[in-house]
Amino acid sequence: MFFELEHTSNKARAGTIYTSHGKIKTPVFMPVGTQATVKAIEQRELEEVGTQIILGNTYHLYLRPGIEVLQQLGGLHKFMNWNKPILTDSGGFQIYSLADLRKIKEEGVEFRSHIDGSSHFFSPKKVIELQRAIGSDIMMVLDECVSHPSPYEYVEKSVSLTTLWAKLAIENFRSIGEHYDYRQYLFGIIQGGTYLSLREKSTREIIELDFDGYAIGGLAVGESMDEMYRVTEFTTDMIPQKKPRYLMGVGRPENILESIERGIDMFDCVMPTRNGRNAYLFTSEGILSMRNSQYKNDDSKIDESCNCYTCTNFGKAYLRHLFNSKEILALQLSTIHNLRFYLNLVAEAREMILQDKFSKWKKDKIIKISSKQFSYSKEELID
Amino acid sequence: MFFELEHTSNKARAGTIYTSHGKIKTPVFMPVGTQATVKAIEQRELEEVGTQIILGNTYHLYLRPGIEVLQQLGGLHKFMNWNKPILTDSGGFQIYSLADLRKIKEEGVEFRSHIDGSSHFFSPKKVIELQRAIGSDIMMVLDECVSHPSPYEYVEKSVSLTTLWAKLAIENFRSIGEHYDYRQYLFGIIQGGTYLSLREKSTREIIELDFDGYAIGGLAVGESMDEMYRVTEFTTDMIPQKKPRYLMGVGRPENILESIERGIDMFDCVMPTRNGRNAYLFTSEGILSMRNSQYKNDDSKIDESCNCYTCTNFGKAYLRHLFNSKEILALQLSTIHNLRFYLNLVAEAREMILQDKFSKWKKDKIIKISSKQFSYSKEELID
Repeated sequence: MFFELEHTSNKARAGTIYTSHGKIKTPVFMPVGTQATVKAIEQRELEEVGTQIILGNTYHLYLRPGIEVLQQLGGLHKFMNWNKPILTDSGGFQIYSLADLRKIKEEGVEFRSHIDGSSHFFSPKKVIELQRAIGSDIMMVLDECVSHPSPYEYVEKSVSLTTLWAKLAIENFRSIGEHYDYRQYLFGIIQGGTYLSLREKSTREIIELDFDGYAIGGLAVGESMDEMYRVTEFTTDMIPQKKPRYLMGVGRPENILESIERGIDMFDCVMPTRNGRNAYLFTSEGILSMRNSQYKNDDSKIDESCNCYTCTNFGKAYLRHLFNSKEILALQLSTIHNLRFYLNLVAEAREMILQDKFSKWKKDKIIKISSKQFSYSKEELID
Repeated sequence: MFFELEHTSNKARAGTIYTSHGKIKTPVFMPVGTQATVKAIEQRELEEVGTQIILGNTYHLYLRPGIEVLQQLGGLHKFMNWNKPILTDSGGFQIYSLADLRKIKEEGVEFRSHIDGSSHFFSPKKVIELQRAIGSDIMMVLDECVSHPSPYEYVEKSVSLTTLWAKLAIENFRSIGEHYDYRQYLFGIIQGGTYLSLREKSTREIIELDFDGYAIGGLAVGESMDEMYRVTEFTTDMIPQKKPRYLMGVGRPENILESIERGIDMFDCVMPTRNGRNAYLFTSEGILSMRNSQYKNDDSKIDESCNCYTCTNFGKAYLRHLFNSKEILALQLSTIHNLRFYLNLVAEAREMILQDKFSKWKKDKIIKISSKQFSYSKEELID
């Protein structure tokens, strides 16, 4: 068994994913470790803050250190000494972000490296082969992620392409076995922009191929929160209960809680790490900007209710000083805390689901973590 | 008792310094934590690698976070949550480095902040008051560090100024008590460039003032290694046995061992941390540049004989990849290893002194750590 659905509370779900590198209790937040490291945090610290699974990125790993290196050294787990599960994104989203540097054809995507401008080609089949060599526990198919807004006709064509690629990917996945001595799983990706009819078509076609799990892609790319929630709920309603659902690239703490309520099991986002490095600290009472001069001589904890290394050892004034002085330790301490906050939030959500208290808890929690007492400009937050 | 001399092996010494924040076994290497953090390493990791005492810098702390902040928050130990001893440099060396931004007068030094260009004035008395508020266990007097080479006449005048300042400093130190509820100690600084007659004069005058310990300043500023060793030995021969001797800003592993042999007890240097951040890793077999492409798929340990977190968990290929990809974790892992290497080297030296095996061990060790098999351009190393 790959996924066990343990409990549902309305549409919110608590489950377990079983991989060759251990179990994952869901809902789960997956820290993003694009280039074989989650930025500014050590592997032992990832475990300490409660990380169950991290993300890697096929596009980035293919360019650096290179698939051949990973293959020679026994795969990504060994290379970075991370012995828990790894999910690798196919690189579709990164290639989509390259904009002028890529050309999408039926056979795949031609793109130029953001590092040295060299030309490369990813096909649906090749992306599976690369992830076989990377050795990720959960692999993702190559998909086309369209920007928002996009015309219906373009998204319609794109959904067909994504389905075609998904077919080619799973054929390759089924015909060629594991690269290492453990099982790997493959997720399909549902696209369709904000058009429900296209989401329906994509979901039907992707589910038909019977993947180990399903990701909802193409969201959190500029559409409104309401649209995102509407598409998410519409899609999760169509995905078989026994398969895990992964909402890619989402998001803020409140987005995660709202999406858990709509039946999502898995999340990844750079928000906690990237915002941490930009001095934004997530707390149980809102977001703090540690550059704020009001913290100059405030030695209170970042978050009274947090038990991370940062909160139990340092005060706001120290964090502010570190950011102010451009010290690397600022990035380390903020990353530890923000990841702990996210992981704790999702772990608490799971507990509430198991106790059938999720809906009420979620409502209160969102009010608390969006508290006005720590105001911030939404534009400043990076996601 | 502040300093206990436990054992000597020829001129090499093993001892213990007793401070209000704990004992320090000497010889000791002190990681440099200029701005209330040793760059890229957490406080718990400093303890893990064997740090007994860290350095802070009066000049930097005065500018950021500011002495008032430190005072309000209970001193530097509390501010940065470091509960072991701290030594603060007076800032004389930093002000000396400002070159065009400072003006030395008999009353003290006028200088401009390297951050915002604002004007400031440090007097020998003020520097003691600042360090009282910082709360360092070992404070340093304000001195004038002259560049190398400097004319005899200039250095002669400078030695007199440094003596005058030392007198004013210790007078203030003796007349005004502790700022917090623990005892602080004060070291004098001996100057004199590479002129032995001036070193003799400075040593005599500074010793006369009866400080808790003596630092040798103005070395490692461009003179030859032989000159540095000559001045060091000449000076330690004059310092009373019962007082600790601190060679400021030194140095490479071999410099430290040679200076221990000449009777030095305490060292500080940015070499392990700064070179670590520049991908130079110190090992028992020489210095490795982790940017070297020869490590591309080499998963052997950085240093087979090292037990630090980095060496026990990651290989060279991973470190190289992190540097290559400009990842923050590269800085973290290199700093951990390089500090562990330095601290371990000095701890081993102490053990050898206690066993009366220092001289022979030192000779072999220097050959090993300077091994030709890992060649590097000396110019690339930063010190």
